[in-house]
Amino acid sequence: MAEKITPRAEDYSQWYIDLVTQAELADYAPVKGCMIIRPRGYAIWEVMQRTLDDMFKAEGVQNCYFPTLIPYSFLQKEAEHVEGFSPEVLTVTHSGEKKLEEPLALRPTSETIIWHTFKKWVQSHRDLPLLINQWANVFRAEMRPRLFLRTVEFLWQEGHTAHATAEEANEFAKRMIHVYQRFVEDTLAIPVMVGVKSDSEKFPGAVYTYSIEAMMQDGKALQAGTSHDLGDNFGKAFEVQFQNKEGKLAPVYASSWGVSTRLMGALIMTHSDDKGLVLPPKLAPTQVVIVPIFKASNKDVVLAHAQSIYTEIKRAGHRVILDDKDGYSPGWKFAQWELAGVPLRIEFGERDMQSQSLVVSRRDRAEKESIEASQLLSYVEQTLATMQNDLFLSAKERMQTRTKELVDYPAFTRYFEEEGGFALACWCGDASCETKVKTQLQVTIRNLPFIQNEEAITGRCVVCGEQAKHQAIWSKSY
Amino acid sequence: MAEKITPRAEDYSQWYIDLVTQAELADYAPVKGCMIIRPRGYAIWEVMQRTLDDMFKAEGVQNCYFPTLIPYSFLQKEAEHVEGFSPEVLTVTHSGEKKLEEPLALRPTSETIIWHTFKKWVQSHRDLPLLINQWANVFRAEMRPRLFLRTVEFLWQEGHTAHATAEEANEFAKRMIHVYQRFVEDTLAIPVMVGVKSDSEKFPGAVYTYSIEAMMQDGKALQAGTSHDLGDNFGKAFEVQFQNKEGKLAPVYASSWGVSTRLMGALIMTHSDDKGLVLPPKLAPTQVVIVPIFKASNKDVVLAHAQSIYTEIKRAGHRVILDDKDGYSPGWKFAQWELAGVPLRIEFGERDMQSQSLVVSRRDRAEKESIEASQLLSYVEQTLATMQNDLFLSAKERMQTRTKELVDYPAFTRYFEEEGGFALACWCGDASCETKVKTQLQVTIRNLPFIQNEEAITGRCVVCGEQAKHQAIWSKSY
Repeated sequence: MAEKITPRAEDYSQWYIDLVTQAELADYAPVKGCMIIRPRGYAIWEVMQRTLDDMFKAEGVQNCYFPTLIPYSFLQKEAEHVEGFSPEVLTVTHSGEKKLEEPLALRPTSETIIWHTFKKWVQSHRDLPLLINQWANVFRAEMRPRLFLRTVEFLWQEGHTAHATAEEANEFAKRMIHVYQRFVEDTLAIPVMVGVKSDSEKFPGAVYTYSIEAMMQDGKALQAGTSHDLGDNFGKAFEVQFQNKEGKLAPVYASSWGVSTRLMGALIMTHSDDKGLVLPPKLAPTQVVIVPIFKASNKDVVLAHAQSIYTEIKRAGHRVILDDKDGYSPGWKFAQWELAGVPLRIEFGERDMQSQSLVVSRRDRAEKESIEASQLLSYVEQTLATMQNDLFLSAKERMQTRTKELVDYPAFTRYFEEEGGFALACWCGDASCETKVKTQLQVTIRNLPFIQNEEAITGRCVVCGEQAKHQAIWSKSY
Repeated sequence: MAEKITPRAEDYSQWYIDLVTQAELADYAPVKGCMIIRPRGYAIWEVMQRTLDDMFKAEGVQNCYFPTLIPYSFLQKEAEHVEGFSPEVLTVTHSGEKKLEEPLALRPTSETIIWHTFKKWVQSHRDLPLLINQWANVFRAEMRPRLFLRTVEFLWQEGHTAHATAEEANEFAKRMIHVYQRFVEDTLAIPVMVGVKSDSEKFPGAVYTYSIEAMMQDGKALQAGTSHDLGDNFGKAFEVQFQNKEGKLAPVYASSWGVSTRLMGALIMTHSDDKGLVLPPKLAPTQVVIVPIFKASNKDVVLAHAQSIYTEIKRAGHRVILDDKDGYSPGWKFAQWELAGVPLRIEFGERDMQSQSLVVSRRDRAEKESIEASQLLSYVEQTLATMQNDLFLSAKERMQTRTKELVDYPAFTRYFEEEGGFALACWCGDASCETKVKTQLQVTIRNLPFIQNEEAITGRCVVCGEQAKHQAIWSKSY
């Protein structure tokens, strides 16, 4: 059972690590920077996987699996790609006792091996669009690892598509960032800002990188998903062409898009509290826990009632657990399930049975409530839905409250020194302004929101005062 | 579209490879020995995963995820384990430009890292049994790779359990081999022989290895799943102990069990034919395909009818596709869906519509049949169930026909030289007899079936003629 979790107000970083380890979501691995995803953490990831996978399939995407091992030379075929990834690549040199002829990279991402293969698969306009995805592990050397947020190995999905035109590839990349937005907002109850990355922050090899950016409880941004319009960069590098309807060879355009176990970090730092994890009901592997309160003399009758409540909730299609363990006090059990983030707890003893009532508590509220036993199912149904919505609204309110429009650099500087959060401020489009802000304030442009207001083209760059080209979200980030 | 598939009678090995590549189940990867699992192959693997995963969860097993990278020194902690695996281990030596302090193994299997972690997780009898599983990729150097059957990287699940007693670990290992048997027989329609491996064939580090062995169409055996009673070998090697109910430290016992993408090979070589893949309905990602036959003049009316049939079948809960593509002949489409192994095809044209009938063909039968349109749903339901059963029975008949009881070595030798298949023959228990048979005939003991008849202890060893201890299944194998 858990040690004390450091309160958020005291040390937010330590709170996060305490929560991850004590709620048994993940653990440190023997190899530095790697993590073990424990059953409680993995069960949440499984719900994410199933939900997203269904959404991908609804877009016509098919799953497949490409090898982890990539000839090192592949990474070098796209100039920006190799520059971006080679410092992070783990390399296999030996097989058994034998030295390999060519070193093999552990995939940091799979564009190269996939486009090498697309050369075989894409011949004619009939082969396009080609929409695939894989659920896989990837590897990137990581100097400052942090459970779920930055690990040497992480789990993710990576979608890769091939299209006949640049427009179609761009449209698909945009469509997928909106799929991510819908998933993260609806299922994880995390509001996000959707937009395009600045050139200096985009994916190595992309024409455009779209991202969803969430705000954590400490006001910092977390990039929760990206989708890239790769243009014909990979198509060219791997010499993929197709015969169009007119019988002519034409270039092939690409998108790629991914989310990872990082989402677990976003989830934790959006909703959880000093008592532990708080899970949105749609995502919770266990949505309802029943804790019957009994002693030796009334154990049988209380547990029989608990069993009937359990069956009733389960039949209604909710994910429910009955905690009838012996040898633990109700208080200990409550703390345990709060730590684990179960959205709804139902407790009752013999007295509640006599008055035909039940005591219920929502994980995101301090008070308990008594309800009539006959109301149980409608209460559960409604509360799970309300709680999902409330979590989203409360995160959205925080994001709105902590997003400030700023027009001059002194105020901008003060904001990040004194408060922190998102700054919505104009930018001239010049990378030197980004560099200045990054160096002075450790703040970067998270993205240029798709929805830009008038200001964007009438205002002045918050850094240099020149004519603005965009409105940008600036923030410190994970 | 497919080239010609080499007929089985001509060259069984080539038929297998042709089928895998032309049915687009898998493809060769740029790194020798690795494979790309294509969408059609992966969709089948997904059905296997979901089905098995539900069966594991019903046994109380929880999923989790351990890192791919294992300190090389871990492998060396269990003497037999390192001897068995180190020739096959791929090793990571560099991270970016930097040489690692200690080389890291790409997991060939995860007993070592998991038992290293169990030391932290298992303290008290309350922590036992601990039942976990992971779906993961593993890596083993492979001299003679073959798509799905032996690849450098493959996908599998590996279950790992910790128990308070030797008996419980043994019982769990046995329980899981029976879960595999049920899965492979019921879902893949592949009959298997269940038994224990001889000492020379067991898993490195196991006390007992249980296996299910299937017979392929060419009479060779394929090991389709294994479950290991690991005794306290890993518990000791990683110094895991628990405090029992009496407050004393006691050793912890283990099981591990796995099946892999090898099952795809077993599936193909059990049911498929010269036209392509044959899929048991329970496993088929697409169970029914509708091919409407139309020309420009009646396209609208035929496709409208096709759509209504599609909806009807889909609503009934079957996995169905409507192939209304333009520009391909019905014959081309039929061949395509036969290659892909779809169990049931429904075709119709305007004339069938007028007579309110449909033409149906089962993938495992040569003849077409005409049915009344009003009978459609009951026909589909019944045929899918019958076909599942028929495929199992026909594979079972083959296995029985090609399993021969043999008592003397000359007949045993002749059997493997002239016919091949499974030999059920007594064995003294001595490894030298196994070696002799392996050297002379390339035949090994697949397992000692759980169900042994009298013969086992009254007969004589088929190789040396000494008193027998067991009855064994002998066979060439994949």
